[in-house]
Amino acid sequence: MKKISILGSTGSIGTQTLDIVAHAPELFKVVGLTAGSNVDLLIEQARQFKPAIVCLGTKELADAARLHVPPGTRVVYGEEGLIETASQADADIVVTAIVGSRGLPATLAAINAGKTIGLANKETLVTAGHIVMERAKQRGVAILPIDSEHSAIFQCLNGEKRESIKQITLTASGGSFRDRTREQLEGVSVNEALNHPNWSMGAKITIDSATMVNKGLEVIEAKWLFDVTYDQIDVIIHPESIIHSYVEFSDHSMIAQMGLPDMRVPIQYALTYPDRMATPTNRLSLVEVGKLHFREMDFVRFPLLRLAFDCGRLGGSAPAVFNAANEVAVSRFLSGEINFLDIERVVESAVSRHDVTEINDLQAIAEVDGWARRFAATV
Amino acid sequence: MKKISILGSTGSIGTQTLDIVAHAPELFKVVGLTAGSNVDLLIEQARQFKPAIVCLGTKELADAARLHVPPGTRVVYGEEGLIETASQADADIVVTAIVGSRGLPATLAAINAGKTIGLANKETLVTAGHIVMERAKQRGVAILPIDSEHSAIFQCLNGEKRESIKQITLTASGGSFRDRTREQLEGVSVNEALNHPNWSMGAKITIDSATMVNKGLEVIEAKWLFDVTYDQIDVIIHPESIIHSYVEFSDHSMIAQMGLPDMRVPIQYALTYPDRMATPTNRLSLVEVGKLHFREMDFVRFPLLRLAFDCGRLGGSAPAVFNAANEVAVSRFLSGEINFLDIERVVESAVSRHDVTEINDLQAIAEVDGWARRFAATV
Repeated sequence: MKKISILGSTGSIGTQTLDIVAHAPELFKVVGLTAGSNVDLLIEQARQFKPAIVCLGTKELADAARLHVPPGTRVVYGEEGLIETASQADADIVVTAIVGSRGLPATLAAINAGKTIGLANKETLVTAGHIVMERAKQRGVAILPIDSEHSAIFQCLNGEKRESIKQITLTASGGSFRDRTREQLEGVSVNEALNHPNWSMGAKITIDSATMVNKGLEVIEAKWLFDVTYDQIDVIIHPESIIHSYVEFSDHSMIAQMGLPDMRVPIQYALTYPDRMATPTNRLSLVEVGKLHFREMDFVRFPLLRLAFDCGRLGGSAPAVFNAANEVAVSRFLSGEINFLDIERVVESAVSRHDVTEINDLQAIAEVDGWARRFAATV
Repeated sequence: MKKISILGSTGSIGTQTLDIVAHAPELFKVVGLTAGSNVDLLIEQARQFKPAIVCLGTKELADAARLHVPPGTRVVYGEEGLIETASQADADIVVTAIVGSRGLPATLAAINAGKTIGLANKETLVTAGHIVMERAKQRGVAILPIDSEHSAIFQCLNGEKRESIKQITLTASGGSFRDRTREQLEGVSVNEALNHPNWSMGAKITIDSATMVNKGLEVIEAKWLFDVTYDQIDVIIHPESIIHSYVEFSDHSMIAQMGLPDMRVPIQYALTYPDRMATPTNRLSLVEVGKLHFREMDFVRFPLLRLAFDCGRLGGSAPAVFNAANEVAVSRFLSGEINFLDIERVVESAVSRHDVTEINDLQAIAEVDGWARRFAATV
């Protein structure tokens, strides 16, 4: 019986994780759940899975929830409650499905507590890759990727030696606007941007797919997860999202991971690793798909992907600025405050205004993050 | 330094194996080589690689060669010489690249001598899969596949548990005549049949690709190599031969092995396993390839593939009859004695005339093989 805590259980990855758990109650036990403000869904989840602890964003929400959760479930709140849930004594694996850079302290707390990490919060490695990977190494903690691309690479590396890696290629569907020119992006609506062709995901990540920022964050994440250089990471457009990513080895043999676009497969793999088990997902038939297409990534069409590579190579505080400015810009776009193409303008301005510094602790990240957010909120 | 013997060193797989060896003289040493009648090339190879022993098909050829090989190279001949070379004390790995069922006794001799097998002779497992796999298990000998499809599956299974396999899919280019109807196959020439679209291979295997017998033999071979049922093996048409085969696991995740069609990659993988190293081959770019196509296998268009599945399921002597009758039929086609479509007729007649028996030793296989050859030579 594997004991699981889920940070961000009411979001897209969180609910799909619980779907997997519900299909194999003999294998998995939920011990901790956290949500920001979706108190109704968290209560429902607490009733179904009876975790030992749940966490909400504020004291008010926690007080409201306390009356409705099962008797054995403790309700905590805020940053402190999140960290308490993340380091909960009983959990074997912590799925970090919180969106954005606030997932970082909780993830580090879980690593410090010796928990295996099912990593769905990509900002953790983007802003603090060297700190997190070093801490995980010290604690002997495995970081199991949940993103479909990183899970694909992780699966392709099964039984292989890291020094045999020649190149890692992340595939990108191209997002909601892959067939539009830059001119056609002027004035696109939020609803159009949220209409991803292949994947059902949260709002932030769907916008990040349309700007290719999502792929940029994945590139930086891949660098840390798989200990490769940026020159060893390539990105191509693969509209069907069937090949989720692949690895080329020193002998020019390539191993690819494929499947229908369904996040439950990589989520489950992190939960069952190194084993596999049946999923409630559909099977892929390449014959039914018929054709797979591949084309070169266009770094002019997607300037934020190029900027992500640049920030990754710069290192230090640059990726944190890139990430924080993007979070604010996406949020401003979703609220109707700025246009789609303004996301690029905001992020580029923040990065070009910032002087890169070294990052050695969470405090330094928080300061850079704060600066970038304030800057991005007004530019 | 890995010491290598190559049975069938003057054929397509044999010469490509020596190409790999020549690129890494610090890693590999050739200790034994065998050829049938190509005495000139064997002498040339002996001079370049200075093996301890070489074998030719007959005493006459051996006598002719003896004058021209390096002083330290012993020359033997015939079936006995082949077995002596296969079980040569010094070799770590024996590459069995002889075409046809006469590769079997030598492969068993190498297994008995505790050698790792680099298996390119597919008839070994087709005619005697249960005997060979059991002997290899008893002797603790690894059978490393060299066929591109089986090497692909073998690579996809790296680090995975065999019980997680849901399905194995072998890809087939479709061979020289993939875009012709059965009617258009009447009276095709030998040269047309030898013109394979993707792979540079020997004559027998190129014809077997056009009839899909090659894929049928691979299906039976896969059954033994990977310990799966025939229901777990699928075959699809993939004209580009880029995805060399793939495995679907219980969680519906698929792992595929890809590369340009170049036999030196699977050959080298068998020689370096479990490591990888740089090859003298070209890199695959999916962007340059642009599109991959997949379509259902047509068992009406390719009746000998269906018959191979049937013979595999029947078991016992059936696959040996299928294989031997096909060898004779292909030889008769190559010599201009029968038409292309007659290959099917000959093999189908032999299988339908044969009463399946159990096969427990090489003697029983030899008898069935002999009957099928005599039958196929005249029908």
